[in-house]
Amino acid sequence: MRAVNLILLFPEDLVAPDHARLTGRRLAHVREVHRAAVGEDLTVGLLDGPMGRGRVRRMDGEGLELELVLDQPPPPKLPLTLVIAVPRPKVLNRVVAASASLGAARIVIVNAWKVEKAYWSSPRMAPENLRQQMILGLEQAKDTVLPELRLARLFRPFVEDELPGLLAQGTGLVAHPASGNPFPRTLVAPVTLAIGPEGGWIEAEIHSLVRAGMRLLDLGPRILRTETALAALAGRLAF
Amino acid sequence: MRAVNLILLFPEDLVAPDHARLTGRRLAHVREVHRAAVGEDLTVGLLDGPMGRGRVRRMDGEGLELELVLDQPPPPKLPLTLVIAVPRPKVLNRVVAASASLGAARIVIVNAWKVEKAYWSSPRMAPENLRQQMILGLEQAKDTVLPELRLARLFRPFVEDELPGLLAQGTGLVAHPASGNPFPRTLVAPVTLAIGPEGGWIEAEIHSLVRAGMRLLDLGPRILRTETALAALAGRLAF
Repeated sequence: MRAVNLILLFPEDLVAPDHARLTGRRLAHVREVHRAAVGEDLTVGLLDGPMGRGRVRRMDGEGLELELVLDQPPPPKLPLTLVIAVPRPKVLNRVVAASASLGAARIVIVNAWKVEKAYWSSPRMAPENLRQQMILGLEQAKDTVLPELRLARLFRPFVEDELPGLLAQGTGLVAHPASGNPFPRTLVAPVTLAIGPEGGWIEAEIHSLVRAGMRLLDLGPRILRTETALAALAGRLAF
Repeated sequence: MRAVNLILLFPEDLVAPDHARLTGRRLAHVREVHRAAVGEDLTVGLLDGPMGRGRVRRMDGEGLELELVLDQPPPPKLPLTLVIAVPRPKVLNRVVAASASLGAARIVIVNAWKVEKAYWSSPRMAPENLRQQMILGLEQAKDTVLPELRLARLFRPFVEDELPGLLAQGTGLVAHPASGNPFPRTLVAPVTLAIGPEGGWIEAEIHSLVRAGMRLLDLGPRILRTETALAALAGRLAF
């Protein structure tokens, strides 16, 4: 279970359909992390496209050239939307990377009463950082398909106007302590899981979520960190 | 889902059966994290004992006095042993804290071929650090009972001499890619889950684990980080 199990290639890396050239920061990364040598095969994948291998054909201080055989589809996404109340910036990166690595098709980061307002202005909430964390998750997991990411700065419009559509014909579950409801034995996909902020959802939020079609789910007596809770929940769908 | 949901008290904190006194580093922690005020109730628990509340009776620069009502049992442990190949030091703390927060009854940190030898001499592998991480996990989860922790520096003696005993009458599962076996529909407790190092178990290790009674478990096409994988697996048992 290593850190980078696939090198994600971007359209701009391709100099031909079967040929990529990495330079600059990306070259440095591949040299340092993979210690790639000429003739070696690296596991690569094209963003939102197929995966396969890239044979190192040339490498010098300026660039690394890969001959590509992209003959495998990426793993299917889980039919899973994670609705996550903004985590504290310190854990945001791990939460987003873990969500992507678990295969969630969609990640919604949503406001909640107990989310500190300052979290929204953290540099980590910048779209380019969140995208980078998802890329790290994909490279960890050996996947190429970015989850759809949505930032919902207003709780109510999201829950009232968008959430019912996400739940249509699927199952929505919101982690809420002491609700007494165990994990359902069978789940109808797609599944939407909502995970609250530190301190939990307030009652008004729980009511809104339930009105939108979410069912309460009791995670038991233990209070888990956001990233642990989401992995524990997604694990039910992943295998 | 906050950081410290329970303050763990140690025998040396008790000045009477219903009275605790925190000083020094622990006082500073409670003051900073909980911003406790006189008259307020804090959620507390006695190490390996009952939980309840502690009312702040006095607080000054030298100490904080709590009047205790410890009338609740801690949550039951999961009948779960996690056998984890030594993670890189950077993630060790999180892995151990997450394992404790998930409620594992026992944690075994075991050597493996692809574990870098230097990991064993990391200061983070010191028993007092590992204990501290488990305490953080318990304080997160609202639990008081430390998991049993075992460091197995030698893979074979552990797997051949100890593991069969852990598996007796229970279920042992080892995460191994492409083995094709889904998560069993029913599990006979106690459950032992083994999670490999970065790069995975080597074939000889897989053979030893299977000989000891472990069944292979395919986690699907995605390669998860140790802490994500263990939460995803433990989630199957936790609710």
